[in-house]
Amino acid sequence: MGNFNITILGCGSATPTVRHMPSAQAVAYGGRLMLIDCGEGTQLQLRRFGLPFSRITDIFISHLHGDHFLGLPGLLSTMALHQNGGTVTVHTFAEGERVLRQILNVFCKELSFDLKFDIIDPSCEGILLDGKHLSVEAFPLRHRVPCAGFIFREKPKLRHIDGAAARFMGVPVCDMQALREGHDWTAPDGTVVPNGRLTTAPSHAASYAYCSDTAFADSVAEAVRGADVLYHEATYGEADSHKARPRGHSTAVQAATIAKAAEVGRLVIGHYSRVIRDEEALADEARAVFPDTVAAREGMVIEMNNLR
Amino acid sequence: MGNFNITILGCGSATPTVRHMPSAQAVAYGGRLMLIDCGEGTQLQLRRFGLPFSRITDIFISHLHGDHFLGLPGLLSTMALHQNGGTVTVHTFAEGERVLRQILNVFCKELSFDLKFDIIDPSCEGILLDGKHLSVEAFPLRHRVPCAGFIFREKPKLRHIDGAAARFMGVPVCDMQALREGHDWTAPDGTVVPNGRLTTAPSHAASYAYCSDTAFADSVAEAVRGADVLYHEATYGEADSHKARPRGHSTAVQAATIAKAAEVGRLVIGHYSRVIRDEEALADEARAVFPDTVAAREGMVIEMNNLR
Repeated sequence: MGNFNITILGCGSATPTVRHMPSAQAVAYGGRLMLIDCGEGTQLQLRRFGLPFSRITDIFISHLHGDHFLGLPGLLSTMALHQNGGTVTVHTFAEGERVLRQILNVFCKELSFDLKFDIIDPSCEGILLDGKHLSVEAFPLRHRVPCAGFIFREKPKLRHIDGAAARFMGVPVCDMQALREGHDWTAPDGTVVPNGRLTTAPSHAASYAYCSDTAFADSVAEAVRGADVLYHEATYGEADSHKARPRGHSTAVQAATIAKAAEVGRLVIGHYSRVIRDEEALADEARAVFPDTVAAREGMVIEMNNLR
Repeated sequence: MGNFNITILGCGSATPTVRHMPSAQAVAYGGRLMLIDCGEGTQLQLRRFGLPFSRITDIFISHLHGDHFLGLPGLLSTMALHQNGGTVTVHTFAEGERVLRQILNVFCKELSFDLKFDIIDPSCEGILLDGKHLSVEAFPLRHRVPCAGFIFREKPKLRHIDGAAARFMGVPVCDMQALREGHDWTAPDGTVVPNGRLTTAPSHAASYAYCSDTAFADSVAEAVRGADVLYHEATYGEADSHKARPRGHSTAVQAATIAKAAEVGRLVIGHYSRVIRDEEALADEARAVFPDTVAAREGMVIEMNNLR
């Protein structure tokens, strides 16, 4: 548990522009840092926004296109140069492991940390991380190559003890954990006190879904249903909507349509084509369908705490 | 012939900072563009400084450290995405060709241009490019891995015709080329007119030398002797001079010592360690030994025309 937020490191698409960096996001959860995608220049962006490399534990790669992957060799090399320790797990397809090992074998023969790989199934389905407080699950997107979306879900949280009520009833400390877990309490005289009289509802367990790159697909809405925040690519605006499907991408209106169908809390759009010059105008197209939409920009922090 | 200049794309060292990008330079000669090294983010820097990818003909890689190489896969991928044609020759060690092919085989299976490799000999010696007007030669530096310096030399230029004298003597157009090449002219009546009466001295043939990464070595001064402009790494200042040799790097004073010994025209220092916060103070250390020193910065253009 603890702080849960996402920093947008890059929200451009494949062609470099001076407006945006290629895809990368940093998910902070408690003291750990996880990356989603790692486009060229991600290590620079981490430095720019003051996110310490030493806290990176997991890197989730959505698909094997350069603008989502090619910052990884440089980042890992720099981490080794600085003698970062611990374990870093790269969640990627088998081909991603193979090419990364080939690259590191030339450019970074000696790693200072334990590099592990978690191979994403070609179906793009499966639980990639199952921690005490957080899980990360993959689901298939619809792109030109196999491509996984990711959903970060906090585990259900413990109920809050009503301190005044617990003191009044004389609940001993050793019984508190059972109360937090939702059990009723049995007093020494045998009286059963319903849990609801001694606790209040737990904090909201937040969820963050990442969908990039993908064409519009109903199945995506199912996968991200009810997420508090959905990052969905919106490579094109209405003016270029004909380019979206053939290239395996979405428009802002399509991203908003997914957000609406999935009943998410908020939509963040990104992965802008180089032809997008006005991200707010693009977001306006989405807002016509799903009002609570924001346009990603590098350095934006999405706070996941206290959402509800 | 034509315009000859160098744009500094990155003059930092391996650790990313928000002050500098990793090593890369663009050499414009006539209509062609050549790169020296290609650190992560080079494609972004080319875009930032308005240098068209489509004109890139040659990429010279000094050595196989990530901060000199890892921008190459992304740059070539973007060139392919944009259907750039022609031929691009990558001059690198054999291992560089192998790993680049492995990477492109995953991230960019279909190139729109003809990608050629020119393998640099492990001795780091040899002529890498021998054009009509320009040659590029490699020479060995002294780093932790095999590392080549590069010297770009304009070929000796043709003499200038003294138009008034040539008209007065009645030299026909068909004889002009021989005059430009320095031959005497024989008039129709058999009189031999010395070349010097019909021409003036050719323009200066400029030369640019690139030395990064390297420890201080006398042999480097020999290799770059008389260059008009020498770019020499100066990773450290005097405060950290003890770090230079063990890491295969130089100080600013050492770079200046090479410049002075080699009797170059001007020294440009770069490849700054992340601990360098004041590049002008570093250049001052060099200027105490070699006054005509400038500190590289991203976007700086070194003009090689009309140097003398």
